[in-house]
Order: sequence, then C-alpha cells, then structure tokens
Amino acid sequence: MEYIDKSTFQAFENRKRARFINSLSGFKSANLIGTKDQNGLSNLSIISSAVHLGASPALIGIIFRPDVSPRHTLENIRQTKVCTLNHVNESIIKKAHQTSARYPKDISEFKACDLTEQYLEDHHAPFVKESAIKLALRLVREVPIEENGTQFLIMSIEGVYLPKEILQEDGFVNIEMAQTICVSGLDSYHTTEKKGRLNYAKPDKSPFYIT
Amino acid sequence: MEYIDKSTFQAFENRKRARFINSLSGFKSANLIGTKDQNGLSNLSIISSAVHLGASPALIGIIFRPDVSPRHTLENIRQTKVCTLNHVNESIIKKAHQTSARYPKDISEFKACDLTEQYLEDHHAPFVKESAIKLALRLVREVPIEENGTQFLIMSIEGVYLPKEILQEDGFVNIEMAQTICVSGLDSYHTTEKKGRLNYAKPDKSPFYIT
Repeated sequence: MEYIDKSTFQAFENRKRARFINSLSGFKSANLIGTKDQNGLSNLSIISSAVHLGASPALIGIIFRPDVSPRHTLENIRQTKVCTLNHVNESIIKKAHQTSARYPKDISEFKACDLTEQYLEDHHAPFVKESAIKLALRLVREVPIEENGTQFLIMSIEGVYLPKEILQEDGFVNIEMAQTICVSGLDSYHTTEKKGRLNYAKPDKSPFYIT
Repeated sequence: MEYIDKSTFQAFENRKRARFINSLSGFKSANLIGTKDQNGLSNLSIISSAVHLGASPALIGIIFRPDVSPRHTLENIRQTKVCTLNHVNESIIKKAHQTSARYPKDISEFKACDLTEQYLEDHHAPFVKESAIKLALRLVREVPIEENGTQFLIMSIEGVYLPKEILQEDGFVNIEMAQTICVSGLDSYHTTEKKGRLNYAKPDKSPFYIT
C-alpha cells in the first residue's frame, strides 16, 4: 500500500493531477446533456458529475466547470432554464466522448458527433434518440462553489422516458438492462455486471440478495 | 418507450418513488465513510453520493440526508472536521451494505458489520482495512440544500492510500483493478468491465481507445 500525501499530489503536473484526483471518488455516471439556445442552436455535452440529490422533490445535482467544454451548455441552461439528461449506453460511448471536444459555439455536437436530436412532448431541449433513458430537467437554483469556481446546479426532474420493460413493479429501474455504462477518471468507460439487489438493512438481520 | 411525467411519479407511494428517482442519475460511487467522535466512538456508513468536485484544489462533494442513517456520521464530521472515504470492493459488498442499518449511536458499525478499523499516519478518523483505496478528507464547507433539507459537504483530499500497481504513470488510477464496485438505485450492486480509455477529444479527430 502506497501513501500519497497532499503535498505530493499537489506537485503532480496539471494533467497528471487531474487524472489522479478524478479517479478517487469512485465510478461516475455518464450522461449527455442536451440544450438549445434562444436562437434554436442545439448543444450536446458529456458529463460525469450528475448525482442523485433527492426523491421528494425529485432533484438531480450537476457540477459544471465554466471554463471547459460544457461551457455552452451552461450558458444555454442559464438562458432557457431547461436541459435534457440522456444516459450513455454501450453502443454510443465513442460518439458521447467526442462531444467533449471544443467545438465552436455555432456547431451542434449532435451533428458533429453523429447523434440524433429528438423532440418529445413540449420539452424545449433536445433529447438523444440513441439513449434509452432520458430525463427532462428544469433549473431550480445555481450554487456557486467559490473554492474552485465551479457551479453546482440543482435541477428538478420534469419527466422521464424509458423502455417499459426495465421499470420494475417496486420502482427500481434496471439501468444495466438498458446498457447504461459508467466512467472512471477522465476517460475510462466501463460496462457493468449485476451482483444483485440487497434487502433493506436492519440491525438484527444478515444481509441477503433479493434478486 | 414509456413517458412518466412529474405528476405520475409524484403520486408513486414513497418507497417506490425513492427507488425510481434514485435510479435515474445513472451509476453511483460506493464508499464507506469512517468517523470517530470526540469520545473515541467510531462510526461507519455506506454512501453513494460522493462526487468529484475538482482536482486543484483536490475536492470531493458528499450529499447527506440528515434524517437517515449516516446521521451519526454527519454529527461526527461537524465535531471533528474529518472523515475517511473507503472504496467498497467486491469482497465486502454485503458488509458495506449492512452499515446502512440503523444501529444505536453507541454501537460501532465496524464491529457490528465485521469490518476492521485501521489508523494510519496521524489521521484522526478510522480507515477500513478491507478497502484497497482510502482517502483522508477534511471538511471545507457545508452547503445547505434548502430545497430538500440535505447538506452538500465540500471536503478536501488530505491523503490517499492505494496499491502501487493500480496507479499508472500518467496519473490514472485503475479502480476496477482494485475491484471497486458501483451502485444503482438504493440497493443494487455491480462489478464493472473496462471497455477502455479514450483519447483526449479534439474536433478534427475521431475517437479511439488508448488502452
């Protein structure tokens, strides 16, 4: 076991430190955020910082670094207050990753990365047709994280699209069945293999798999 | 494809809605938070809400619901300003899950769930011996999320323990090699299978796997 103290990793070259620290929180969600600005220009951006915030009300948190690629996405959300969140699945990993390239503002990553814009119900922002699980989100509040200049966006879930067969009776959504993948670090993509769901834990009971 | 709008999922029974919404952000990290209060009593709690916040300074965000099981953990962090974050790996899934049971304050989940307290360097909080990747964290700031009564804790990374062989030359940490697992929803545990790491994306280049 190796110990890497703060002064050691702070002295890492910038890219190396970014790769290192990015790996440490564990596996991360992989989503594509779809937006459309006031002039009708769409934008698509991969993000690994979407996190469950609460079920009642239904909230998702997303961390944005304003200085890097999802910059246009953040501007669009500020303008229109809405975006979509689309799970990255196994068949679109490369296309999804490519949305992280710094395209000029007037180029839509949908077109540049060969992913399909989809408009559903009366939601303003575009969904990704190739994604099996898609959420419509609305901005609730933007929390500035002064410690590093990032923004923590609190978003409410306004609607959910998903294949009928992955929604179980008790509310659990089998995202693995929809081939949703996960990320580690800046650039490593992983499929998953289910071990099982565990029972609701109680002090006087031993844990066991329910499925 | 099924559409579940806001009013539909808001009308779900509480547990069902919690299972449903918890699944929607994608895969989540699985960590054990170790703390020790001022009287020397240790506490251990599984959490799926740790998220990468930034590499410079090295920050991790953790969302706490004060009303449920990691309640003692939050109290201990407020008292002592520190905790440890330990990756859950395949061999300790059941024990890690069992820490979510509501044990009384005077019972240490380390003992109750058969995991081993480990004290390293001069870090006050206990690490989990069975975890391969362990972080020492210090509280920077607590951000109240008034929308649902949760707390978003901004924590700085003070030190990192990991097996030497999983740290790659360029800074990437192969957490899959350390058998770190991920979670979906409230109770579903998954191992991972690496597809590969993709190149740094550029507009004029097609994406390709570098490893």
